[in-house]
Amino acid sequence: MRHIEMIKEFTLDERLVESGEVIVELSLSKVIFVNSKLFPWLILVPKRASMREIIDLEDMDQKILFQEIVLVSKVIKKVFAPFKLNIASLGNVVAQLHVHIVGRFENDAAWPNPMFNKDKEPYDKTLYNELKEALAAQLTLN
Amino acid sequence: MRHIEMIKEFTLDERLVESGEVIVELSLSKVIFVNSKLFPWLILVPKRASMREIIDLEDMDQKILFQEIVLVSKVIKKVFAPFKLNIASLGNVVAQLHVHIVGRFENDAAWPNPMFNKDKEPYDKTLYNELKEALAAQLTLN
Repeated sequence: MRHIEMIKEFTLDERLVESGEVIVELSLSKVIFVNSKLFPWLILVPKRASMREIIDLEDMDQKILFQEIVLVSKVIKKVFAPFKLNIASLGNVVAQLHVHIVGRFENDAAWPNPMFNKDKEPYDKTLYNELKEALAAQLTLN
Repeated sequence: MRHIEMIKEFTLDERLVESGEVIVELSLSKVIFVNSKLFPWLILVPKRASMREIIDLEDMDQKILFQEIVLVSKVIKKVFAPFKLNIASLGNVVAQLHVHIVGRFENDAAWPNPMFNKDKEPYDKTLYNELKEALAAQLTLN
């Protein structure tokens, strides 16, 4: 009885859940808006079980992920007008495949270094909710 | 006479040139093999002038860049068999659009942190040349 194979279902990694709220479900990915006012920061998490690398995805899912990276990049640019976009898929700590898309400013808390190791500083709740709505509206417009 | 508009041509940023050697020209990007034995590290640089962001590229170039990211990822996986791939487009220091694709190991010099701020340690010259040839062969096979 112990040998029945489990059908693996996608479940969002607990550490990604804790980083912010899922604000939109795109066709492939959940979009998390990280709750840190230091950087405008969204995370794409493809809704596929047991994926660790972009090249683990099926070809069609890879194409959709890239389209979703472009979409989220454009929305961050529109909503926050950052000086630079940082896009990264690392996964050394949280193994579940996810892609960071972050707006950077020349006076931000980590510039010009990567922002990964900065502790998060939560937004004021009202502001977070306003931004969440603005982002969700832009992400579903396109 | 001073007002003639310059036609901007692509030239590889000097700091990217210094990080290693261009080992292959793909259809969109030059591929640099970074000369640091701490991590197997390739950089894609799209041969387009004045680009800073992936979303600055024409749609077709974006698609090709994503295909080239997948190709380089697969080649690093094949040649170095890393535990994890790290893929990142930051550009906070070197503004010219470029994408890092790096193989990571659980016992490497920066694990599990990002590798960007580690000083480079050059390969033995013979090994660098051997790896360069192995990588170039795999990149042109596909």
